[in-house]
Amino acid sequence: MNPEVLQWFIPVAGLLAVAFAIFLARDVLSRDTGTKEMMDVSSTINEGAVAFVKRQYLTIFGLALVGAVVIFAVISALETSQTADTSHTGVDMGIRTAAAFFVGALCSMACGIIGMLVSVRANVRVASAARRSLVEAVQVAMRGGAVSGFLVVALSLLGVWTVFAVNGGLAGGQNSHDAPFLIVGYGFGASFVALFAQLGGGIYTKAADVGSDLVGKVEAGIPEDDPRNAGVIADLVGDNVGDCAGRGADLFESTAAENIGAMILGASVYGLASTSGWPHPEAWIFFPLVVRAFGLVSTIISMFFIRGKETEDPMNILNRGYWVTTILSAISLAFVTNVMMNNGGVSANGAPVWVWFFGCGLVGLATSIAFVYITQYYTAGSYRPVREIAEASKTGPATNIIAGVSVGFETTAVTAICIGIALLASNWLGSQANLIVDGKNIGGVFGTAVATMGMLMTTAYVLAMDTFGPITDNAGGIAEFSRAEAGARDITDRLDAVGNTTKALTKGYAIASASLAAFLLFSAYIDKVNLILGHRGDAPMNAVDLSNVGVFVAALIAAMLVYFFASLAIRAVGTTAQAIIVEVRRQFREIPGIMEYKARPDYARVVDITTRAALKEMIFPGVVAVGTPIVVGVLLGYEAVAGLLMVGTIAGVLLATVLNNGGGAWDNAKKYIESGHLIGPDGQVLGKKTDAHAAAVVGDTVGDPFKDTAGPSLHVLVKLLATITLVMAPLFIR
Amino acid sequence: MNPEVLQWFIPVAGLLAVAFAIFLARDVLSRDTGTKEMMDVSSTINEGAVAFVKRQYLTIFGLALVGAVVIFAVISALETSQTADTSHTGVDMGIRTAAAFFVGALCSMACGIIGMLVSVRANVRVASAARRSLVEAVQVAMRGGAVSGFLVVALSLLGVWTVFAVNGGLAGGQNSHDAPFLIVGYGFGASFVALFAQLGGGIYTKAADVGSDLVGKVEAGIPEDDPRNAGVIADLVGDNVGDCAGRGADLFESTAAENIGAMILGASVYGLASTSGWPHPEAWIFFPLVVRAFGLVSTIISMFFIRGKETEDPMNILNRGYWVTTILSAISLAFVTNVMMNNGGVSANGAPVWVWFFGCGLVGLATSIAFVYITQYYTAGSYRPVREIAEASKTGPATNIIAGVSVGFETTAVTAICIGIALLASNWLGSQANLIVDGKNIGGVFGTAVATMGMLMTTAYVLAMDTFGPITDNAGGIAEFSRAEAGARDITDRLDAVGNTTKALTKGYAIASASLAAFLLFSAYIDKVNLILGHRGDAPMNAVDLSNVGVFVAALIAAMLVYFFASLAIRAVGTTAQAIIVEVRRQFREIPGIMEYKARPDYARVVDITTRAALKEMIFPGVVAVGTPIVVGVLLGYEAVAGLLMVGTIAGVLLATVLNNGGGAWDNAKKYIESGHLIGPDGQVLGKKTDAHAAAVVGDTVGDPFKDTAGPSLHVLVKLLATITLVMAPLFIR
Repeated sequence: MNPEVLQWFIPVAGLLAVAFAIFLARDVLSRDTGTKEMMDVSSTINEGAVAFVKRQYLTIFGLALVGAVVIFAVISALETSQTADTSHTGVDMGIRTAAAFFVGALCSMACGIIGMLVSVRANVRVASAARRSLVEAVQVAMRGGAVSGFLVVALSLLGVWTVFAVNGGLAGGQNSHDAPFLIVGYGFGASFVALFAQLGGGIYTKAADVGSDLVGKVEAGIPEDDPRNAGVIADLVGDNVGDCAGRGADLFESTAAENIGAMILGASVYGLASTSGWPHPEAWIFFPLVVRAFGLVSTIISMFFIRGKETEDPMNILNRGYWVTTILSAISLAFVTNVMMNNGGVSANGAPVWVWFFGCGLVGLATSIAFVYITQYYTAGSYRPVREIAEASKTGPATNIIAGVSVGFETTAVTAICIGIALLASNWLGSQANLIVDGKNIGGVFGTAVATMGMLMTTAYVLAMDTFGPITDNAGGIAEFSRAEAGARDITDRLDAVGNTTKALTKGYAIASASLAAFLLFSAYIDKVNLILGHRGDAPMNAVDLSNVGVFVAALIAAMLVYFFASLAIRAVGTTAQAIIVEVRRQFREIPGIMEYKARPDYARVVDITTRAALKEMIFPGVVAVGTPIVVGVLLGYEAVAGLLMVGTIAGVLLATVLNNGGGAWDNAKKYIESGHLIGPDGQVLGKKTDAHAAAVVGDTVGDPFKDTAGPSLHVLVKLLATITLVMAPLFIR
Repeated sequence: MNPEVLQWFIPVAGLLAVAFAIFLARDVLSRDTGTKEMMDVSSTINEGAVAFVKRQYLTIFGLALVGAVVIFAVISALETSQTADTSHTGVDMGIRTAAAFFVGALCSMACGIIGMLVSVRANVRVASAARRSLVEAVQVAMRGGAVSGFLVVALSLLGVWTVFAVNGGLAGGQNSHDAPFLIVGYGFGASFVALFAQLGGGIYTKAADVGSDLVGKVEAGIPEDDPRNAGVIADLVGDNVGDCAGRGADLFESTAAENIGAMILGASVYGLASTSGWPHPEAWIFFPLVVRAFGLVSTIISMFFIRGKETEDPMNILNRGYWVTTILSAISLAFVTNVMMNNGGVSANGAPVWVWFFGCGLVGLATSIAFVYITQYYTAGSYRPVREIAEASKTGPATNIIAGVSVGFETTAVTAICIGIALLASNWLGSQANLIVDGKNIGGVFGTAVATMGMLMTTAYVLAMDTFGPITDNAGGIAEFSRAEAGARDITDRLDAVGNTTKALTKGYAIASASLAAFLLFSAYIDKVNLILGHRGDAPMNAVDLSNVGVFVAALIAAMLVYFFASLAIRAVGTTAQAIIVEVRRQFREIPGIMEYKARPDYARVVDITTRAALKEMIFPGVVAVGTPIVVGVLLGYEAVAGLLMVGTIAGVLLATVLNNGGGAWDNAKKYIESGHLIGPDGQVLGKKTDAHAAAVVGDTVGDPFKDTAGPSLHVLVKLLATITLVMAPLFIR
């Protein structure tokens, strides 16, 4: 088969996925919206969410505009014919980069906004469906989530393809080779928006959650999501703006940046292929886009396998779809590598060259599966870690926290080992393909890129599962708030517990893909630096030498940045939460009759306070994240920046793992106790309203900003480091 | 002056310091031992401490014996004439290394045991002195602490010097050049013991502290150190075995390993000096020992400046002595560099060569001062961070924990920036001296070694301040326990607060020295690897290349190891503490009359439970720490190990900073509230017995294993990575 046929499959699959997302959205919106009380709450949540997102995205739009202007200025000034890595230089290159940046930013914003709008409408429909059937509720929630999932992946695919096409990527030859270097701004735009979307949303959601839990559950002794709590609507709004819009932007960025990085590496193979006279050399550049297109189609098919029995564990229903996606992805991966990776039929180490890269892609899919199960082990109540935390709650909040931190730290072990094995395996498999350029085997690095692309084939499904989380969480909130029948609340509770796990899974997935991708993004950076050095006639950078004091200091700063950034994010939640607590307390005190359901608290005021505080607090950490790599690069040079990038990735991935899994485990330890699994010394059940439960609530509250603000923001930080250094590379070469 | 004269000053200063330590010990022991009740408690503490240390050091002795045998076997087999870095090979080298290891282990054990024996006797004398005078109490505590301080530094100095002498180091010429390479086992022995001493002691002290606080202060509502609490003696014992013996072993190891590493770098300069015909080339090798000898003498003099007024802040009294030590060290540093660093009078960049290195030494001293003040800012109640945590306690334990974690993460920023500046500055100053070997300027790395040595000049003083902490803590405990007069308890309370700060300072100091030293220890490792590669006729290792996938994976494993190890240490405390809680609860329940002071709890049983649990729990993390670098080295090779070492250092230093400073800040936030500084919304003081105080106690409890078990154990881990890789290097080269 001619690979050029497959290249046309990219826009087709992208548009198909968009159409499917519209179909799903219409399907979800056509469902019944439940009782009047449900609709009331839902529209209040909707108002709050829209208000926040409007303000947030206006702020981000402004920041992105400033960013585009700065990028235009820097690139126009620095990418002279002396330093540029392609024939496009000066103002031409400045416009291209700034435009790609801006388009990337706009696409990311569009995904976030549309996904969230659907999700705030899906929640009430799930609550309503839960009055009838578990399976129906699962389907509505999953379809609502899939709207986000498909839009994010399809827009990232279509976006990259369009920008690539506009920059001449479809013209073939040197044009196709150069185009990936011209569009790195797209990835940077996506990271830039993701940073602020995740930070702002993360601060909002957890400040509202922590604040209203502390003042409601702990102080006033009323249940979660109780309408007497003035913070409850802000909390429900938060689920949508943080978990849904934030994670969407995060994965939009992953797929876009890693795709472009992989195309840059593909461009190196293209060079080898065209000088060696292999057929269809451009196929190596298009490969990442095509693989993702097939991943999208596999995911569309899998949506029809989300069915099951009423009595079944809802997690099983979701897992079924995931396995279908994975298997279809593996099959199509074999097909795509076979068609596109053609070195003219020469055997490499006893096998056709595509076989080695097919192996790399399987490593990526396997890594994805591994992380799904690792995360389940560490954050689900059926295993040792969560039980350990629940047991420690018997002796109070301090031992609960100690146990949780210990579990969080522990989770790094298997995470790092899995990533290490995946990197070594895909690097080894790729190197067996014998792609030798200038005496260097570039197959190894390209192998890690293929593994990353393999992993990203299932992104749409994983993201759909993730958005399932906030939708069911909200559905539960609506059911509780509107005092729906007990059966409905039971079902939403079960879905909510599953949602906690799927949210944790997605974070594990995002981390694993970031670390696999780290290698290809470094390599893209090194390629770019060496192209510039070559143009200037300087010696290339052969190593990122840690025993060079500048590199070491940059590495130290990178590891520090990760902690400092997390500190700022966590502090922002604490500050904002305290403002909410003060306000809710005031309302309890000053509005008589709230506790007797006679007076309605002023929800809007809390929403407003949270919105203002969250947007204010997201700016400083954002600036630190963007500024640090630039300052280090200007002071210590391009090799030091590479050290910053690599060690920053390691440190960021591990700290994010600690925060995400620790937080997830705390959350589920509380749920474990609430489900009556914890047994006291005399055989009695230690459930709600015991000291052990109170201790577990403390742990859950501590874990909230860890797992939903700082942890996910660190994913974005790690990828931002990669895209910012890629775009700003000319600035660091003196 | 002839530098050879100064070389004889090493044993003289070492013996002088030992004599002075004996003088101080006799002085302390001659003081009065207070009331009968005080003596009773003190002897109970003494019994518990001796029992634990006896068992602990027997275990460590056994482990060290096994370690020595393994080292003998590995080195004898691997250091063939093909791979050895000196003319000593095979069994000869195996015996030398194993013997050095064992001597290092024995010296470290001796320091720990003697220092602790003095400290458990000093505590009651401080309690007694506190009935009369603040200044006298400070003096007794500081002198008791100084016994440890001087012994540790003097034994490390004499030990290194003796092993160096036995290995022919005093013979001059090539013998002097080779000797530092033959004694690396000494540093490894010291780290090996430090690892287990710190782990075992750290687990013991914090399990006892956390366990007895939770069950006594929180559950039963009785004060800290109240005799009705069965865990209180175990808690008091813990201060001695953890803070005192543990930190002594930690700094013994620092001084020994960094000294040997600096001598190895000195050997490279020796090579340059002898080929260039500079006078006294051996002086470059002896320099680290001589500088430390002068540091010891400066500290002896400073002990006579520890005086002040009764009304003075005790911290000022201690700071006075610290500044005297620093100033005398700076003066003697100028003298030593001037005499010993002689390149035949050739000016380097417009200045004599010694001036540049004198500058490096000053950078080291300045780093030490910087860390003293940084730690005070982050852990003392007079500044923003502690107040922030105290304020957050108003909304309960969850916000207290969130604020504390945020502060802990934040402390990495200024820490990393200071270390970065110190490294860049000392590297730049050193490189100005133009020490060119094989076209490479080795002055930069040697500059960081000189900075480290400058920093280590004040170790004895800092360690004395540190041991001041557990002594005054114990004195307070004895005063409370024996129900001494209020005035005495007031004074010991003030001293205890200062002791918290000095303990935190020492950890900051240990971290800073570990990071400065990191560079010299990598370089020593790289020198050793290259010597071996050179003997084999292989190309040398020119870079530790992070873009090499093996190095990257090793770096990832290193950063993970730091978390995993900390997780094991923290979990060990949790596990052991729960055993204590259960036992104390049982005693409250089953021994009637405890609460009315009518029956005496069974203290010994709690001591025994803690001892057994702590020793059991220290084994696994210890094995993980020792095993990981070896496994990674065998699987991924010598360059990967260098990456593991460097990134492990970065990650370890930063996580230790987080844990130490976060823990210290939590502790002092609690003290801040107890001192009545926290004001409620209506202007009332929120002191003891309020919810805010209870929240702060939770934070303090969480911080305990962070700052006194995991954090300090990480210092040791970082240095262990350096010494183990240095000794085992031949194993990693295939």
